[in-house]
Amino acid sequence: MYIAMNNFKVVEGKEEEFERTWKERESYLSDVHGFLHFALLKADAQGEYVSHSTWESRDAFAAWVNSEAFTKGHRQGSLMGVLEGPPEIKTYLAIIEETPEGRTVQVR
Amino acid sequence: MYIAMNNFKVVEGKEEEFERTWKERESYLSDVHGFLHFALLKADAQGEYVSHSTWESRDAFAAWVNSEAFTKGHRQGSLMGVLEGPPEIKTYLAIIEETPEGRTVQVR
Repeated sequence: MYIAMNNFKVVEGKEEEFERTWKERESYLSDVHGFLHFALLKADAQGEYVSHSTWESRDAFAAWVNSEAFTKGHRQGSLMGVLEGPPEIKTYLAIIEETPEGRTVQVR
Repeated sequence: MYIAMNNFKVVEGKEEEFERTWKERESYLSDVHGFLHFALLKADAQGEYVSHSTWESRDAFAAWVNSEAFTKGHRQGSLMGVLEGPPEIKTYLAIIEETPEGRTVQVR
């Protein structure tokens, strides 16, 4: 499992505008190979949001970044004036996973 | 959906020790009400790790933090000398979710 998080810091008072932009956006994710889950996360800390996407593998994420679906998805909705600064992307590989049904320790 | 992330910065050269501590740890999570998923994430950025747990709700997470299972889980495995500094906890509520089967925009 591979997770990509884009971290946003939103200007105070612009939170509703930021959220509306995301709600009106078409993600073009549903047919992308290896896509598992997307969430827009609102932090309990003021003004912080994370675009959080989960993938079967790093390769599936990398293929999406280079796809037409990615370009189309990122062409919509300007965040000009809404953010404190450029978003910060962080990417992660899961090395241990656990669900209520049991634990998986990943072999790498 | 509620996500809690504890962000760790590991001293260079101590990554294997840090990972081993987690692999040998008993989480006591499987029977906790509202627990959905746990992952230990290794960042593509050097030395960064995230303990990433997903919950049905903020209330389920808060109840776990105050439970015996939490106390037992956090009593194991010292990370003394392995971390650059104290871990930083971040907590988030999902306000939009999407899976390959379709989108849910959360009502709050």
